[in-house]
Amino acid sequence: MNIILLSGGSGKRLWPLSNDVRSKQFIKLFPSEHGYESMAQRMYRQIRELDRNAVITIATSRTQVSAIHNQLGEDVGISVEPSRRDTFPAISLACAYLHEIKKISEKEPVVVVPVDPYVDEDYFFALTRLCELAGTSDCNITLMGISPTYPSEKYGYIIPRNTSEISFVKSFQEKPDKATAEAYIKQGALWNSGVFAFRLQYVLDKSKELLGYDGYKDLYDNYDTLKKISFDYAVVEKEASIQVMRFNGIWKDLGTWNTLTEGMEEKIIGNGRMNDSCRNLHILNELNIPILAMGMKDAVISASPEGILVSDKEQSSYIKPYVEEINRQVMFADKSWGSYRVLDIEKGSLTIKIGLKSGCRMSYHSHQNRNEIWIVVSGRGKAVVNENEKLIQKGDVVMIDAGCKHTIIAETEMTLVEIQLGDEIYIEDKKKFTLN
Amino acid sequence: MNIILLSGGSGKRLWPLSNDVRSKQFIKLFPSEHGYESMAQRMYRQIRELDRNAVITIATSRTQVSAIHNQLGEDVGISVEPSRRDTFPAISLACAYLHEIKKISEKEPVVVVPVDPYVDEDYFFALTRLCELAGTSDCNITLMGISPTYPSEKYGYIIPRNTSEISFVKSFQEKPDKATAEAYIKQGALWNSGVFAFRLQYVLDKSKELLGYDGYKDLYDNYDTLKKISFDYAVVEKEASIQVMRFNGIWKDLGTWNTLTEGMEEKIIGNGRMNDSCRNLHILNELNIPILAMGMKDAVISASPEGILVSDKEQSSYIKPYVEEINRQVMFADKSWGSYRVLDIEKGSLTIKIGLKSGCRMSYHSHQNRNEIWIVVSGRGKAVVNENEKLIQKGDVVMIDAGCKHTIIAETEMTLVEIQLGDEIYIEDKKKFTLN
Repeated sequence: MNIILLSGGSGKRLWPLSNDVRSKQFIKLFPSEHGYESMAQRMYRQIRELDRNAVITIATSRTQVSAIHNQLGEDVGISVEPSRRDTFPAISLACAYLHEIKKISEKEPVVVVPVDPYVDEDYFFALTRLCELAGTSDCNITLMGISPTYPSEKYGYIIPRNTSEISFVKSFQEKPDKATAEAYIKQGALWNSGVFAFRLQYVLDKSKELLGYDGYKDLYDNYDTLKKISFDYAVVEKEASIQVMRFNGIWKDLGTWNTLTEGMEEKIIGNGRMNDSCRNLHILNELNIPILAMGMKDAVISASPEGILVSDKEQSSYIKPYVEEINRQVMFADKSWGSYRVLDIEKGSLTIKIGLKSGCRMSYHSHQNRNEIWIVVSGRGKAVVNENEKLIQKGDVVMIDAGCKHTIIAETEMTLVEIQLGDEIYIEDKKKFTLN
Repeated sequence: MNIILLSGGSGKRLWPLSNDVRSKQFIKLFPSEHGYESMAQRMYRQIRELDRNAVITIATSRTQVSAIHNQLGEDVGISVEPSRRDTFPAISLACAYLHEIKKISEKEPVVVVPVDPYVDEDYFFALTRLCELAGTSDCNITLMGISPTYPSEKYGYIIPRNTSEISFVKSFQEKPDKATAEAYIKQGALWNSGVFAFRLQYVLDKSKELLGYDGYKDLYDNYDTLKKISFDYAVVEKEASIQVMRFNGIWKDLGTWNTLTEGMEEKIIGNGRMNDSCRNLHILNELNIPILAMGMKDAVISASPEGILVSDKEQSSYIKPYVEEINRQVMFADKSWGSYRVLDIEKGSLTIKIGLKSGCRMSYHSHQNRNEIWIVVSGRGKAVVNENEKLIQKGDVVMIDAGCKHTIIAETEMTLVEIQLGDEIYIEDKKKFTLN
């Protein structure tokens, strides 16, 4: 099976656990054998368990590459969008990547799947079925529609010609009001899940026809000039040869705290406790500070180095404008080489905790306007400062003046405290070099 | 006026803003001209504004001395209890201190006042009056009783002989149920505020008679052997020559989050915001992480490095057992020389932020089982390590091996990051030395 996992989205609706560099699909929410896993990890594992040989390509933006490598490993196929251009350019680029880099035949079916719904095994069986249909049917596009469980005003609806399991599509309807949604459902309408399958050739042709570029390099190099347009709008809604497959299994959109907590198997993740008078309360705590809740009802408490949200569940869906007002310095991030977390901000200094994975290293870089001091708190490795190498271990201190090139190559897992000192400290003050 | 301010109490009911080394009276809650002030600061300032020459002695335990000096300055009179022995030994020791150290005549009246009620100017006029009464009346003890505003089950009641402003006391009643409280109030009963006045000689005599020791040194040296007993129980309730003065002004006991927030003039202290659907919500945030509250009603959110409490206000009065279960490492403290705050705890290391006041220094000390590294983040001063002095400033690093004596003397206000490294890190691993 060839799968394009769409991993986009900003981090505002699930603040403070998501941020500008960690979208909601990377929040670790679901208990598994190996600790908590994120939506992305869960979906990736579920696909792998069903089909060990699935060719999975993650279509994503540059900002998410580190998080993907951190959570899914270095071997995962990634089609990196040079800039944000909505789903049609993203899917076009990923299809070209599949064809040229992964050498997938243009005759093979491909299924496009958003990374963030909460689903179980049935969903993946349905994906396999969908792929088979796309490979054998005469239709250009095969959609997966979700059997609605209530007349939602949040989703787009697919109106099928008839109510059989597989049907031609009659029309698409945007988010309706409740009464209209009820009328649609009576006609057998389905929620548009954003899942669809096609033969690779179909999208390669569409890209060439509608975007005017042919092939991976051509698309990649001209990506910034492409028009922002969704695949639904550019292709799906204009396609006459289109069918939909009905899916009756579990499918939950975890886009707000309200819906996300519905998908959680545990009431408390992280250091938290609640007294007996709490009802329908969820606590998600990524701080190392304990949370105690008393008498809270229908609420969510979530905490990270970026902020603490205490919200009535229903109210939580209105979070976006408030988060936009909060000064959101990125306070934590997963990187391909490990992770970092801001411990303290002071005028003229920033204290950061850095975790390096065994065998990994951060980029070789310098800063123009700040000095840095590293203190090794655990583990051992090699510091390189202006080409000079030095073995370092717990208790060692490395001083890096402004302008010095520096990196650490971790021999074991390592923890550092980094102290940045300068009148102006900003993330863009970073110049990267090649380490010989 | 001679005042003994009783500053006792543990920090459990107002967790996480109070802890084992910061009792509730040191939480900065009240806006003033010079930023927020604590109950202790407010009370101290209010007394000073009324009577510049008041002799104020704070009776307190060893653990609070640093916080008192930090908040009230170095000049404040403190009678330090060598151990916790309840109010009769504490008041006896403070009276001996007043007589011998402060040279107050045994004929002078003294008023004992708990440090933690929320009061206004009228209360201090009443204290002056109470002192005058104690100095002129034939009664041995003059109590201040609070006119009840509702039939509380939380307070002890004083039953006076009659309902005039000043009356002999008929009896004392422990915390009654509501119906009984209503009956008491009909008789003119008053809440026992814990405020009382007497001539110094009276308590000096009582100490000798009931505790068996005479004079400050004698009491201090034998303090650990004294029986734990309250002044109310040992003296007040057994005294026949006793009167009560009625007080009708503002008096609020701020002992729980529920009552404390009633006394707050502002809804939000620290970095917090709430949306329009919040009602009767208070946010107290001592973290540098923003709090966003949405749709919360009748609740309190309070946060410090020690924990985050999210509680229904009424439920917050049941906090004590839950806090006892939480592993409460002291995560912040005010010291006479400044303050500290734990930034990060890791197996084998602890990262701390230290603030030193200009001209101050921490004790000259060593640790047996840990190395320490200081990084100066702002300011300048002098580090002393094993008698070697060195001027240090922003960006300098001081390495202190286990066993080395060390301190910093701040020339300006200073901020340090301290990294402790060792297999066993514990607060008791500290040996103090005299710095020549």
